[in-house]
Amino acid sequence: MNFLSDTTAPAHPDLIEAIAAANRDFAPSYGADPVSARVEAQLKAIFETDLKVLFAVSGTASNALALSVLCPSHGAILCHDEAHIHRDERGAPEFFTGGGKLIPLPGDHAKIGMDGLERALAEIPEGFVHTSPVRVLSLSNLSESGTAYTPSEVRERAGRVKDRPALVHMDGARFANALVTLGCSPAELTWKAGVNALCFGATKNGALGAEAVILFPSVMDRFEELQARQKRAGHMAPKMRFMAAQFEAWLRDDLWLDLARTANARAKTLADGFRCVDGAEVLHPVDGNEIFVRLDEAIAAKMRDAGAQFYQWPDGSARFVTSWCTTKAEIVATLAAI
Amino acid sequence: MNFLSDTTAPAHPDLIEAIAAANRDFAPSYGADPVSARVEAQLKAIFETDLKVLFAVSGTASNALALSVLCPSHGAILCHDEAHIHRDERGAPEFFTGGGKLIPLPGDHAKIGMDGLERALAEIPEGFVHTSPVRVLSLSNLSESGTAYTPSEVRERAGRVKDRPALVHMDGARFANALVTLGCSPAELTWKAGVNALCFGATKNGALGAEAVILFPSVMDRFEELQARQKRAGHMAPKMRFMAAQFEAWLRDDLWLDLARTANARAKTLADGFRCVDGAEVLHPVDGNEIFVRLDEAIAAKMRDAGAQFYQWPDGSARFVTSWCTTKAEIVATLAAI
Amino acid sequence: MNFLSDTTAPAHPDLIEAIAAANRDFAPSYGADPVSARVEAQLKAIFETDLKVLFAVSGTASNALALSVLCPSHGAILCHDEAHIHRDERGAPEFFTGGGKLIPLPGDHAKIGMDGLERALAEIPEGFVHTSPVRVLSLSNLSESGTAYTPSEVRERAGRVKDRPALVHMDGARFANALVTLGCSPAELTWKAGVNALCFGATKNGALGAEAVILFPSVMDRFEELQARQKRAGHMAPKMRFMAAQFEAWLRDDLWLDLARTANARAKTLADGFRCVDGAEVLHPVDGNEIFVRLDEAIAAKMRDAGAQFYQWPDGSARFVTSWCTTKAEIVATLAAI
Amino acid sequence: MNFLSDTTAPAHPDLIEAIAAANRDFAPSYGADPVSARVEAQLKAIFETDLKVLFAVSGTASNALALSVLCPSHGAILCHDEAHIHRDERGAPEFFTGGGKLIPLPGDHAKIGMDGLERALAEIPEGFVHTSPVRVLSLSNLSESGTAYTPSEVRERAGRVKDRPALVHMDGARFANALVTLGCSPAELTWKAGVNALCFGATKNGALGAEAVILFPSVMDRFEELQARQKRAGHMAPKMRFMAAQFEAWLRDDLWLDLARTANARAKTLADGFRCVDGAEVLHPVDGNEIFVRLDEAIAAKMRDAGAQFYQWPDGSARFVTSWCTTKAEIVATLAAI
Repeated sequence: MNFLSDTTAPAHPDLIEAIAAANRDFAPSYGADPVSARVEAQLKAIFETDLKVLFAVSGTASNALALSVLCPSHGAILCHDEAHIHRDERGAPEFFTGGGKLIPLPGDHAKIGMDGLERALAEIPEGFVHTSPVRVLSLSNLSESGTAYTPSEVRERAGRVKDRPALVHMDGARFANALVTLGCSPAELTWKAGVNALCFGATKNGALGAEAVILFPSVMDRFEELQARQKRAGHMAPKMRFMAAQFEAWLRDDLWLDLARTANARAKTLADGFRCVDGAEVLHPVDGNEIFVRLDEAIAAKMRDAGAQFYQWPDGSARFVTSWCTTKAEIVATLAAI
Repeated sequence: MNFLSDTTAPAHPDLIEAIAAANRDFAPSYGADPVSARVEAQLKAIFETDLKVLFAVSGTASNALALSVLCPSHGAILCHDEAHIHRDERGAPEFFTGGGKLIPLPGDHAKIGMDGLERALAEIPEGFVHTSPVRVLSLSNLSESGTAYTPSEVRERAGRVKDRPALVHMDGARFANALVTLGCSPAELTWKAGVNALCFGATKNGALGAEAVILFPSVMDRFEELQARQKRAGHMAPKMRFMAAQFEAWLRDDLWLDLARTANARAKTLADGFRCVDGAEVLHPVDGNEIFVRLDEAIAAKMRDAGAQFYQWPDGSARFVTSWCTTKAEIVATLAAI
Repeated sequence: MNFLSDTTAPAHPDLIEAIAAANRDFAPSYGADPVSARVEAQLKAIFETDLKVLFAVSGTASNALALSVLCPSHGAILCHDEAHIHRDERGAPEFFTGGGKLIPLPGDHAKIGMDGLERALAEIPEGFVHTSPVRVLSLSNLSESGTAYTPSEVRERAGRVKDRPALVHMDGARFANALVTLGCSPAELTWKAGVNALCFGATKNGALGAEAVILFPSVMDRFEELQARQKRAGHMAPKMRFMAAQFEAWLRDDLWLDLARTANARAKTLADGFRCVDGAEVLHPVDGNEIFVRLDEAIAAKMRDAGAQFYQWPDGSARFVTSWCTTKAEIVATLAAI
Repeated sequence: MNFLSDTTAPAHPDLIEAIAAANRDFAPSYGADPVSARVEAQLKAIFETDLKVLFAVSGTASNALALSVLCPSHGAILCHDEAHIHRDERGAPEFFTGGGKLIPLPGDHAKIGMDGLERALAEIPEGFVHTSPVRVLSLSNLSESGTAYTPSEVRERAGRVKDRPALVHMDGARFANALVTLGCSPAELTWKAGVNALCFGATKNGALGAEAVILFPSVMDRFEELQARQKRAGHMAPKMRFMAAQFEAWLRDDLWLDLARTANARAKTLADGFRCVDGAEVLHPVDGNEIFVRLDEAIAAKMRDAGAQFYQWPDGSARFVTSWCTTKAEIVATLAAI
């Protein structure tokens, strides 16, 4: 009953098999392999658009690489105060952009509120040489509180910054989880809503270690620079076919959506259970596979005794993360403990 | 008959199996897993010393990470003019060190010559605020020409810079290949000869994608900084166990040495064959799995017609790289073509 | 009647004369001149301690240089949300530190409040590899709202972060203005209160362009690195004697304190005048030479018509900055207009 | 008899007077002052073209700023192995470009030879993601050996790299000295010969501390980025008028050319003297105000005894630098000593 993080979960067996299959024979290195090409084609179909893609081994890497081609070193990136890029990447965006500036914004449930966005835009002048101008808006979907921006919420925020001019980055470490809850298409949640670049994560949803940086047509001309930065950051893996192979299997036959649906369903059941318990308060909408719940210590202790593992969050709540391999039995056992 | 690079070769099946085995159940993320701990123990035994280790997905990453904790941003790194860190990493060392300076040195067969080293040390003053002082000496073993530094050659060069004070980095992307040819112990070729940090590569010798940065006791106090830099460079893979598992299988029962011996033996046979052919001139000692040979165009054409793939090197020679899975039959067929 | 900024004011004539005097004959370059040495001695006397000092041409430079030896590239700097280093230096701290992270904190009158400081310290873990740890606390004295931290306020904030461990930086672009209001000694306001490094500004208070970075004994061992960074940032002026000469004249016979006293007195008179006027609301304590006042548009218009120049601040208030050469007559004329 | 460096010389009195004159009254800060605007007009007339200009306090700053808008962080800069940007700026170009790579080239008398340039271009591939592509050619005029590139030599080298595509930077710390020897126009030696950006130095030739970064029309669209980088590097001096005032006086009535002619004439006399002496060998053409001469120790000792100060160069020669205020009497006395 491990709810610590979806990064502690194993990979889906199909991806292991795909790696084994990709291991037959020689293949061009550094992303020039045929598997990588096939994944690009898959993604074009899924996102219903032309695009460019490359892979990285971690979400931190994919976020920082994407931001480094969207934001000049003397520009600023607006993000939520609790965003992973601001709180949990040890300054990776600052490092990759060459000293770009992150401006943390407020907003309920870890989603950037329109008020905070308006205030930041009012406070940060454009064309004033002393101040880093707004060049990127970064939205995390799922957010750090496990909540989802709807396509219209994305569009509203993206639309507000377009004329700065600023570009829109989406941290989609749990993009699949948001998508299946929202019930919209990948295109509707991204480029159609104003997103220029998506960091599309598979690692938390069944992969061994595979993240994709996707440039939509509006910024596709930056792909050569992105590759140069990928290389000099050490993220152009020599045997890239093994990362591509994970994506190919994960995207095939909607496996990625099925895995996210399972994880979300488990989270929903667990959250519903919490809502029936005195001494447990679910803090945010559960739009994906994460639950933040304020627990009486007695309840928390019972769950730990029953073998449930979860994190104490900085705000004092308990975080439960389900994954593609969380079983119904585990949820039942966890709830039975309380 | 693919001699393009050892990065185009498949991984050894044992490593795929090890990944599948590591995929059972949940495991702590970011390197806190038990497999990573076991690999550290293996490495301590192999190198006969205490040490600290972390993993990265590419040689460029491991070199740049290691250099970034050895060299301050205002220091200089001495390396051979043909070194991978200087020619083939798109400025990764400069990026990771925050603007450190690479000083390319001459030397036969891509090994830093003592003359060039002495001249550089004479020309670069110490304690002169205008000039980046020498803080690192980087040795590639195997070198970019496929030649090996002996332990005494390493010791001689390391000893020459110790009082700068400078530290010694070894780019061991093909460390195993050098080691089995030299017949010395891993300790003798590294820390006993004055090496402070080793980038120990598995990818070119049978892994899917796994490189280790090893800090020997003299610089082990920099490990915490190394981890911080690994994280902010996006190289702290969430499911690190899959990189560790590759190393565990690769190091077990001397598999890594066996694979290198096979690759080296194939290279030796091929080089011996070239040496018997008019119109083929082997340019450097073949100390590992790389051969650089100047070929008459007629001969090169025959080999290509026979299906042999190899790179044209910038100096006009042809480069042949053998790997753990190059077969005797492929060597025979290649030589038969000429 | 120019109240736009103290950077628009001329320099004090004594400093021009000092430059002319320093221009006689040859002198060693890059800070090895005798004037620079004499200024160091003056500063040791004024601050009643050993210290190391170097000069820079702007406050942005001196802040960023100081921060770059206090904060590692993977660390975080706590500052007020309105701090100059966060709002008005175009990402200079991020650039000079190699990607360090600024964490903006709240607090009335542009002074970091203890509540906000406590919350940040609670939220930012120590020893967690994913999060940039707190390594510097930066205090602006005067603050961006023209208010002063007292020695005990400095000590309280500095004491709170010492065990992180974090160092304390003071942005003293208007240090003299704070000092003469507080009536304490330079030592009491800095190293005795826990400040490790002071950026001591002269430009806004009578110099042509001269700022000093002062390292107190607790961090004096970083001076060699500071010089290296000064050089590679292009701030080691070849003819440094001309910057030193400004400081020498400015510090001689308490000229620097007299100039600050004059500027502060003018500000006080102006603020007192505003306080007697309906339609004018002084927003912050006037602890130095800056007044932020909310003005009815009618009043503002009258003042502009009378020839008074001042900035519209982002919060809607009007900022008036007095300088060493603001005259009583100008204050009278400005107030007479309303 | 100080021949150590032209940076140890005093400034020309006209520039001190200009500073005093600029000190009357208030003036807009950060380069928006009327003096700065007048200097831009002067420079347009002198260079017979439209251009954009900003000022910096040191040659290291102006070189690094210029290079940072010419070279992406993942590009390479070709320069002579002895270039100031490579040997004497503590890694400033690497720092400002965010990790750009300097490739040192050979060539007699510290001028890049066409052979070395051709070899570098042949060795450094274009469009190969692993290798930093050539994006800038940097020429020092005067070179570090005191020699000058003629307009046709500049044109030949610039023409060779234009199609990379690469831009041409000229380090003109002693541009005036080269110019008066060559007898060509400023335009002929720069943009007409293919130079895109010039670092135009006044400090070594009579200023207190004033360097100009000039963008010619081909790269004028990068001026906004240059200003942003000037600001975040701390080189946007608040009271910029004092730097501009130096340039205005220096450029007026060809003072800058007269000063350079004087310095060059002194150097010529001294070099001619050396050429008549046994035991003194002048090593390079004396195209400006620098002489490199191999001296018998007995001769060197006599000169030192007579009060002549000069540097021992790393190559074992003695460097004599004359300045605008070196007198004929000093030259006579120096030669008389031997």
